[in-house]
Amino acid sequence: MLFKVEMTVNIPLDFPVEQADEIKKKEKAYSQQLQRDGKWRHIWRVAGLYSNVSIFDVQDADELHQILMGLPLYPFMDIQVDALCRHPSSIRDDDK
Amino acid sequence: MLFKVEMTVNIPLDFPVEQADEIKKKEKAYSQQLQRDGKWRHIWRVAGLYSNVSIFDVQDADELHQILMGLPLYPFMDIQVDALCRHPSSIRDDDK
Amino acid sequence: MLFKVEMTVNIPLDFPVEQADEIKKKEKAYSQQLQRDGKWRHIWRVAGLYSNVSIFDVQDADELHQILMGLPLYPFMDIQVDALCRHPSSIRDDDK
Amino acid sequence: MLFKVEMTVNIPLDFPVEQADEIKKKEKAYSQQLQRDGKWRHIWRVAGLYSNVSIFDVQDADELHQILMGLPLYPFMDIQVDALCRHPSSIRDDDK
Amino acid sequence: MLFKVEMTVNIPLDFPVEQADEIKKKEKAYSQQLQRDGKWRHIWRVAGLYSNVSIFDVQDADELHQILMGLPLYPFMDIQVDALCRHPSSIRDDDK
Amino acid sequence: MLFKVEMTVNIPLDFPVEQADEIKKKEKAYSQQLQRDGKWRHIWRVAGLYSNVSIFDVQDADELHQILMGLPLYPFMDIQVDALCRHPSSIRDDDK
Amino acid sequence: MLFKVEMTVNIPLDFPVEQADEIKKKEKAYSQQLQRDGKWRHIWRVAGLYSNVSIFDVQDADELHQILMGLPLYPFMDIQVDALCRHPSSIRDDDK
Amino acid sequence: MLFKVEMTVNIPLDFPVEQADEIKKKEKAYSQQLQRDGKWRHIWRVAGLYSNVSIFDVQDADELHQILMGLPLYPFMDIQVDALCRHPSSIRDDDK
Amino acid sequence: MLFKVEMTVNIPLDFPVEQADEIKKKEKAYSQQLQRDGKWRHIWRVAGLYSNVSIFDVQDADELHQILMGLPLYPFMDIQVDALCRHPSSIRDDDK
Amino acid sequence: MLFKVEMTVNIPLDFPVEQADEIKKKEKAYSQQLQRDGKWRHIWRVAGLYSNVSIFDVQDADELHQILMGLPLYPFMDIQVDALCRHPSSIRDDDK
Repeated sequence: MLFKVEMTVNIPLDFPVEQADEIKKKEKAYSQQLQRDGKWRHIWRVAGLYSNVSIFDVQDADELHQILMGLPLYPFMDIQVDALCRHPSSIRDDDK
Repeated sequence: MLFKVEMTVNIPLDFPVEQADEIKKKEKAYSQQLQRDGKWRHIWRVAGLYSNVSIFDVQDADELHQILMGLPLYPFMDIQVDALCRHPSSIRDDDK
Repeated sequence: MLFKVEMTVNIPLDFPVEQADEIKKKEKAYSQQLQRDGKWRHIWRVAGLYSNVSIFDVQDADELHQILMGLPLYPFMDIQVDALCRHPSSIRDDDK
Repeated sequence: MLFKVEMTVNIPLDFPVEQADEIKKKEKAYSQQLQRDGKWRHIWRVAGLYSNVSIFDVQDADELHQILMGLPLYPFMDIQVDALCRHPSSIRDDDK
Repeated sequence: MLFKVEMTVNIPLDFPVEQADEIKKKEKAYSQQLQRDGKWRHIWRVAGLYSNVSIFDVQDADELHQILMGLPLYPFMDIQVDALCRHPSSIRDDDK
Repeated sequence: MLFKVEMTVNIPLDFPVEQADEIKKKEKAYSQQLQRDGKWRHIWRVAGLYSNVSIFDVQDADELHQILMGLPLYPFMDIQVDALCRHPSSIRDDDK
Repeated sequence: MLFKVEMTVNIPLDFPVEQADEIKKKEKAYSQQLQRDGKWRHIWRVAGLYSNVSIFDVQDADELHQILMGLPLYPFMDIQVDALCRHPSSIRDDDK
Repeated sequence: MLFKVEMTVNIPLDFPVEQADEIKKKEKAYSQQLQRDGKWRHIWRVAGLYSNVSIFDVQDADELHQILMGLPLYPFMDIQVDALCRHPSSIRDDDK
Repeated sequence: MLFKVEMTVNIPLDFPVEQADEIKKKEKAYSQQLQRDGKWRHIWRVAGLYSNVSIFDVQDADELHQILMGLPLYPFMDIQVDALCRHPSSIRDDDK
Repeated sequence: MLFKVEMTVNIPLDFPVEQADEIKKKEKAYSQQLQRDGKWRHIWRVAGLYSNVSIFDVQDADELHQILMGLPLYPFMDIQVDALCRHPSSIRDDDK
C-alpha cells in the first residue's frame, strides 16, 4: 500500500550542532536502508525548505507507523500522511 | 526539473454528466500522452477524494504552466504546486 | 486495515426534496449493507451537524476508495480520511 | 453518552526521557482501566502521528471532563471533543 | 446537560423575501416554545452579525440533535456545538 | 452591556505547581466576587478543555477591559471577545 | 462606546448593475447621515479592495447592531466587529 | 498617506517585570510624541486584549517602516499593516 | 511608492467564453499601457495558477486603488496588497 | 528560471544582540554578492515587518535551494517559495 508522507524538520536554534549532525547521519542511513528495502519508494526535497515529500510502499498503516516512529529525526518533525491508491489514468505498473 | 502538483477536481452538481464524462475521457488521454512522453512522471489518487498527487518532470516552470493550462479538467481544479529538488538521501538516480 | 472517515453532507437549498430523499434512502441501504459486510464498522452522527464519524475496515486504500466513490451522497460530501493503526494501549481485540 | 475525543501528544524535546516513560506507563494503565470499565470504548492510533482517536461512553460532559483531566499526559495534549449521537443508519445496537 | 451552540444564518440574496419572513416567523415561535420548555436556556445576538450564541439544557446529545434539526432556519445555518460542564468557580446553582 | 468572553488557559509545563495553585485560588476568588457583583453573569467549563465560556454584564468596553486585565490568570490566557445584544426571540428579561 | 467595524462588499457577478448602483447610492446617503450624526466617526477605504475600516461611536452594542442591519449593502457584506476602549497612551480627547 | 496598523503585544511570562515596565514607559512616550507630531493619528485599545488599532499618517511606506521599527515594544509585537485611501463616502476632510 | 499586488482570477464555469476573451483582451491592453507608463513595474505569472505577482510604482495608495479598480478583470479577482519599502540590502537603485 | 521567495525573520528575544548583528552583516554581504551575480534579482522590504519579498533568477530549483540554505539568517526564517513564469502581458524582456 502506498502513502504520501510530507515531513518538515524543525531543529531548535539552541540544539547542539554535533548532536544534530549525528542524528542527521543516522536519519540518512535509516532512510537509505528503507529505500534499498523498497519500503521508501521516493524522497524529494521541497525547494527552499527543510521538508521532504516521500512515497512509502508498505504492508499497511501499522508498518508505516513503525517506520515513521523509528525516524531518528521524528521528534523534530511535523508530519502529514495521505493514503494513496492507483490512479485510473496511470500507465506505470508500479504506481500502485 | 521536478514539481509536485496536487489537483482536486470539483465538478458542479448540475453540470451535465455526459459533458463531464467527455472531459474526463480527454483528461485521461492527455495525461497518458504526457506520461508516455516522460513529462508526467507519477500520478496517484488520494484515497477517498477526487484528488491526485502528481510528479512532473519538465524543462522549467513555463513548460509546467503550459501543461497544466492544457488540462481538460483545469477549469474545475484547485491546484497546488511545489518545486522539488533531488534529496541528498535519495538512492534513486531518477528522483531528481 | 482501519480508516476513520468524517463526512459532511451539503445539499443545496434548491435541490428537489424528493430527489434528495431518494438519494438518502439509497445511502442508508448502501451503508447498512456495508455494515452487515463488516466493512463499515462504526457510524456515529456528530451532534447538531449533518456529519458523521465512521470507521471502515477494508483490505486497503483502494477498497476504501471504491466504497466511498460508491456513496450515493458522495457528490454532496466533504470528506476527510485518516489511516488508523492498533493503539498499543487498546484492550479490544477488534480495534485493529 | 458518546464523545469522540482526538488527542495529540507533544512532549518537549528536552523533557527527561525516564520521566516521560513513567507518565506514559501511568497513562496506559489509566486508559486500560477505563476501557475495562466500559467508559473508554475505543482507542486507535492515527498512522504516523503521536495522536489517537477515542470514543468515550460516559454519563455526561462532566464525567468526560473528569476523565480527561485525569489523563497523566493531559498537560502535554491538544484535545478536540465532539459530542456524538446514534446515527439513523447504524445497525449496531451499541453505537449509541 | 448544557451545550453552547453558535448559529450563523446565511440566506441567499435571491431567496424570496416573503418565504424567508415566513421561515423566520416559524423560527421565532419554535425558539420561544423551547425557551418556555426550559430547553433553550439563553439566546443572544452577536453584535453586527446575523448570528446568535445559545445555551441549551437537554437530556443528552440526541435531544440536542433533534432540536437543532427541527430549526426552521437549519438549512441556512452554519452551526458550532460545544459541550459544557459546570465550572468549579460558578456560584450560580443553575449554571450546570 | 453584555459580552461573551472565551478564555483558554495555558500554563507552561515547567511553571511551579504551588505558584500556579496560588494564582488559581486568587482567580477563583476574583471571579466569584465579580459574579456576586452581577458583573460576571455566567461561567461554564468547555468539556475536556481548560477553557471557559463566560457572559459579562458591564457598563461598557472599558469596564470589561479593566475586569479582564485584572484576572490573575490573564498572562496565561488566550481570550476572544464578542459584544452581544438582546436577541429579538429571547423571552428572558435579563438576557440583554 | 467605540467599535471598529470592517466591511467587505461582495456583489455577485450577475447582479443587475443599475440595481447595485441604486443600493450604493442609498448606502452613501445612509453612511453620510450617520457621519453627520456623529455615530459613524471614521470611514476609510482599504487600498485595492472593496472593503472599508470604520469607527462607530454608539450608545451600546444594540445601537451598533441596528445601524449595521440598516446598511443598504448589508446583505452583500462580510463584517467583523471589535469593541474598542480608550488607549492609555492616547492624547486625543475624542479617541474614547 | 494613511495606514491602519494593528499591534498585539506578547511579553513572555518570564520576562523581568521592571524591564517590561521600563520598555512600556518608553513606548508610551514614543507614541505620544508621534501623536503630537501628527504622525500617529489614532490609537485605540481592543477590548480585553493587549492589542491596539492605530491609524498612521505618514509620507510613505518607508516612513511608516522607520516609525514601527523604532517602537520600543516592536520585538514583542505581531503587526498587521493595511494601506488606506480616502473613502468616497467620507464627509471628514481629514480622513484621507 | 511600491506595492506588491497578488491577483487571482476566478471566472465562473458558465461565463460566456467570448465575453471572457473580450475582457481579457482589454485587461492585457490596460496592463501594458500601465507598464509603458511605468506604473506597473513588474508582472509575473505564478506557475500552474491563473494568478500573477505584480509590483506597482505609484504616487500613493489612492492611485493604486484607482488603477486596481480599473482592471477589466477586477470583478473576477481575489486581491492581496502589501506596501513595500526599499530594502537596506538592495543594490538596485530602482528597487524603491 | 524565476522564483518569488518571501522570507520572514524571527530572532528570539534572548538571542545575543552582537551575534545577531554579526549574522545580519553576513546576510547583507551574501545577499549583495548574489545580487551582483544576477541571481537575486530583486529584494524589497514589506512595510512594518521584518520580512522581504525577493525575486531569484536561477538555473533550477536545486540552485535556488543551495542559495537559500546558504543564507546566514536561514535558521531564523519562515520561507515561502513560488515558481514564476513569464506573464503573457509583460512588456519587459527581462521579466522571465
